[in-house]
Amino acid sequence: MLVELRRGSVVESRHHVHVAVVDASGALVARAGEPDLITYWRSAAKPFQALPLVLDGAADRFALTHTDLALACASHSSEPGQVALVRDFLAKIDCTERDLLCGPHRPLSEVVARDYETRGVRLTAIHSNCSGKHAGMLALARHHGWPVEHYTRPDHPVQERCLAEVSRWTDLPVSHIGVAIDGCGVPCFALPLRNMAWAYARMRNVEGGRPNGEPNQGSAFRVPQSAFRIVESMLRHPELIAGAGRPCTEIMRAHPGRVIVKVGAEGVYSALLLPDGLGIALKVEDGHRVAAELAIAAVLEQLGLRPQPAALGPQSVANSRGQLVGELRVTGGVA
Amino acid sequence: MLVELRRGSVVESRHHVHVAVVDASGALVARAGEPDLITYWRSAAKPFQALPLVLDGAADRFALTHTDLALACASHSSEPGQVALVRDFLAKIDCTERDLLCGPHRPLSEVVARDYETRGVRLTAIHSNCSGKHAGMLALARHHGWPVEHYTRPDHPVQERCLAEVSRWTDLPVSHIGVAIDGCGVPCFALPLRNMAWAYARMRNVEGGRPNGEPNQGSAFRVPQSAFRIVESMLRHPELIAGAGRPCTEIMRAHPGRVIVKVGAEGVYSALLLPDGLGIALKVEDGHRVAAELAIAAVLEQLGLRPQPAALGPQSVANSRGQLVGELRVTGGVA
Repeated sequence: MLVELRRGSVVESRHHVHVAVVDASGALVARAGEPDLITYWRSAAKPFQALPLVLDGAADRFALTHTDLALACASHSSEPGQVALVRDFLAKIDCTERDLLCGPHRPLSEVVARDYETRGVRLTAIHSNCSGKHAGMLALARHHGWPVEHYTRPDHPVQERCLAEVSRWTDLPVSHIGVAIDGCGVPCFALPLRNMAWAYARMRNVEGGRPNGEPNQGSAFRVPQSAFRIVESMLRHPELIAGAGRPCTEIMRAHPGRVIVKVGAEGVYSALLLPDGLGIALKVEDGHRVAAELAIAAVLEQLGLRPQPAALGPQSVANSRGQLVGELRVTGGVA
Repeated sequence: MLVELRRGSVVESRHHVHVAVVDASGALVARAGEPDLITYWRSAAKPFQALPLVLDGAADRFALTHTDLALACASHSSEPGQVALVRDFLAKIDCTERDLLCGPHRPLSEVVARDYETRGVRLTAIHSNCSGKHAGMLALARHHGWPVEHYTRPDHPVQERCLAEVSRWTDLPVSHIGVAIDGCGVPCFALPLRNMAWAYARMRNVEGGRPNGEPNQGSAFRVPQSAFRIVESMLRHPELIAGAGRPCTEIMRAHPGRVIVKVGAEGVYSALLLPDGLGIALKVEDGHRVAAELAIAAVLEQLGLRPQPAALGPQSVANSRGQLVGELRVTGGVA
């Protein structure tokens, strides 16, 4: 599977896409490129970093809402409303913005970024697209009585707990998961696309708050019932998972209750297609953001989730004079 | 040859690099990936689009200086001094900025772009990195008595003349060269990397204003003596070919008289290594700009042009907290 930039009649640039589509049993049902490619899951791992909140009782203890849990899973756009909700989340756990150790960055939404520039808004940790995830990590620390300082360190119990959860859902021993530092300062995880897809597929095995999954062959894993709160929080709040105009939000809005889509940095997407119980993980080998957006929409469309937002179809490329000189589009698919 | 982004101990993203290194006889002396990959030459074709100025007598007619000719070959940074020189060039041919049909764009130099933003400079056609090339095209039209209107159209005699020159130096019939529209509105050319590299290598066959090249086997091509003015203009003015801090300029400054380096959009570079008479053309398959910068420096270093500017060595990647979390570096080389 490729995303190609065509100019005139010639392909000018190519982006290679690797995809794994896996069912809840762990079977690879479709693929493109190398489904066992090892890469970093980046922000597409967030739902599994949020799961300890419900599994360990922190969500109940602090009366976390679907809104709070959705933000813990989100790579939000730093929209004013999203930032305000993260502040509310922090207040519930007796923390403030000053406890956040994520760094500020230009908002992932260009519209929001320009608005803040125009208004001279000073960007701080709370504007990080990961501030909801960090709030969740602080909540986990508060719940267990662990120190809230240095919660980003790989040897902090919060991070060890998140890694253990990632290990469980991906069916990989901790020793088989590569750990490095993510854009926001917490550990991120390197593992095969196939295992990322499997973890998403497994999230499907909860319905109406009741797990219906069977243990997987050779694995004692059962989908915990409380995991449904994480799935439901994302399904209820597509507008928080990314933001207006961004692919995760727009694909989920177009198909309410049928799909979870989660972006990761450097050309990564993961998704759960609920009607079919399929997990999807993809990586654009060179990390190209727009190519990854078109690729996830194309894979979901091929798997039957139609229509996809028009903005995620072939993209015209204009030059400095406004002439249409090329097109970026997906060729091939999963098989 | 790859440019890899490593995070921790795992390669997160990969950029494939295709390279052709060719001598003046057209022999492929080194390669990486697919040296016959067809892609667009983009702005790395500019010296050959400037050659008709000297070959047809326009440079003499209008008393064009090395400065003017260097700007005709340049993808400049829109620096105030560069823009002023393009205005002078236009005045010599009785044209003004209003005759330019290139569109404005954010300057290729981030320093210049931020300076203009801070000072509220309105960007116009003269700020296009291609404004020198367009001035050259207007000069050619003036010289031949062709209309200066619509000089960007593929069927305008200026563009037919440029294509003929590209065909001659690359040893490809016009019918074998793909033509599409470049970022600035004029035709751009799709052809194999090997032929791009050969054209650059052939430019070496002029010394002290005298061609020393022999006709190539199976080709009646002789390097015209006047072509030396184009080579010399670039060698004398590295600061105009790109701009302060940009790779073409910095590599040429580090090795005066020994190399010509010319960037093209979408991950393209071409170069002429004068001591060895080698032409180089490379393309990063996915168009990644920084990967192409590191790749051209690595290839030139491997071919003996040492040292390369430190800024073009392995690049540290920092996250939003300022932690060094990864590195972008070249692996492999030409062989």
